[in-house]
Amino acid sequence: MLPPAMKTSAPVLILCALAAGARAAIVTRPVAYEQGGVKLEGYLAYDDGTKTPRPGVLVVPEWWGLNDYAKGRARQLAALGYVAFAVDMYGAGVVTTDANKAKELSGQFYGKPLMAERAQAALDQLLATQLVDPRRVAAIGYCFGGATCQVLAYSGAPLVGIVSFHGSLVPASPEAAAKNRARFLICHGGADAFTAPEALAAFRKSLEDGKIDYEIAIYAGASHSFTNPEADALGAANKLPISYNEPADRRSWALMQQFFHEIFAVKH
Amino acid sequence: MLPPAMKTSAPVLILCALAAGARAAIVTRPVAYEQGGVKLEGYLAYDDGTKTPRPGVLVVPEWWGLNDYAKGRARQLAALGYVAFAVDMYGAGVVTTDANKAKELSGQFYGKPLMAERAQAALDQLLATQLVDPRRVAAIGYCFGGATCQVLAYSGAPLVGIVSFHGSLVPASPEAAAKNRARFLICHGGADAFTAPEALAAFRKSLEDGKIDYEIAIYAGASHSFTNPEADALGAANKLPISYNEPADRRSWALMQQFFHEIFAVKH
Repeated sequence: MLPPAMKTSAPVLILCALAAGARAAIVTRPVAYEQGGVKLEGYLAYDDGTKTPRPGVLVVPEWWGLNDYAKGRARQLAALGYVAFAVDMYGAGVVTTDANKAKELSGQFYGKPLMAERAQAALDQLLATQLVDPRRVAAIGYCFGGATCQVLAYSGAPLVGIVSFHGSLVPASPEAAAKNRARFLICHGGADAFTAPEALAAFRKSLEDGKIDYEIAIYAGASHSFTNPEADALGAANKLPISYNEPADRRSWALMQQFFHEIFAVKH
Repeated sequence: MLPPAMKTSAPVLILCALAAGARAAIVTRPVAYEQGGVKLEGYLAYDDGTKTPRPGVLVVPEWWGLNDYAKGRARQLAALGYVAFAVDMYGAGVVTTDANKAKELSGQFYGKPLMAERAQAALDQLLATQLVDPRRVAAIGYCFGGATCQVLAYSGAPLVGIVSFHGSLVPASPEAAAKNRARFLICHGGADAFTAPEALAAFRKSLEDGKIDYEIAIYAGASHSFTNPEADALGAANKLPISYNEPADRRSWALMQQFFHEIFAVKH
């Protein structure tokens, strides 16, 4: 509030704003770590203008590996004010655009303890940066990455929320539901050819039975991989029914932000 | 932007703000109209501080009739800047808290042309106020009211969007889908005992097949009537499995607002 009759000099105010803005920038850096005897390289992104601990978000990539798409999402999250860590599930530098290779790489994880363990190692790295508030950590994931987020949550990891974007759906066993601490936001394509309606219904039933606090958002006409602008090209090259859907991408990203505002709200 | 070195007098600014704010108020009034030989009374609510046409929103009540709950929602929408019209489906003053009576009253409409015709009459009244931009009209509905919104949209009414809160789900026939002009937001309770999972799946399939632009949001543990704080009392009195769910209410209302921002955005 300005004191009465104070002279306001607009040029001074503008300079102050510019000076403050100039110091804040999105910084990114590779993070070398290891899990299960495999050398990994994650990707950290955050706005260095903020010094206080803030919410952290893991980004678990699609089955193609930690590629530019996953890194771009980490930078977007950093621009929103979060400390983002794009997870390396496969090994330093291991990425592919070949579906057969991707299937082989991701196949190491489904149904195995390794899925949660490999993701937990990334969570440990994110916490080790000392940039995040450990009470406000979430994980988002795409396709295979979405399944990984669910499984990480089921392992009892200290996550307040997960967001699965066109993720494979992993039903929660009673034990998993009992250990889970996260709220779930499941964004699913209405035309996702990889998940039968019955599987979606069974997944949802498992969350209801396990009293997991979830929200499932289903987007009209959206295929698997609907958030990835490269999906059509990847689909054509690999003969897979995947494609980008801009409205679903935009709406699910907006819903994620609403979700984050809720789960990251400071509890009094 | 202030000119350089302009004297700013805080008290004057505050007085100006108060003067502007004092003129804006939520006004409400009953609106008498008629349809099909039945005298009806709707409820109009809007902020009279704005003079330019703005988006209009119909509110179609639960099967209990146009009661205080529906009127409250109309006032909430007015506070958000919309012109709201709570629809009278039954007849002036006809409300009930008895489920048998409600079933009888709402039963006049399901599967009949009357459902769309009665709602269309309310839409006509909303447009007749001259307060709304006819290119930006939506309808929200609760339970029976949600079904009514779907049916109104299927009749080809000039709606840009509908929001169904724990509505009965009416599958879209190919003809209905062809006539529909609205985007659908379907907010559904994960524990809604009135809609079997198979019915939800069939409903969704009809929207996909009809290429309707929809988003379905399913809320964990929420029963039918999850948006109504009176649901538990009404459920107890009528032995119905309905109850209020504050998180689902809050989240679905927030999602509706996001939906409105999208559908009401001025197209350039």
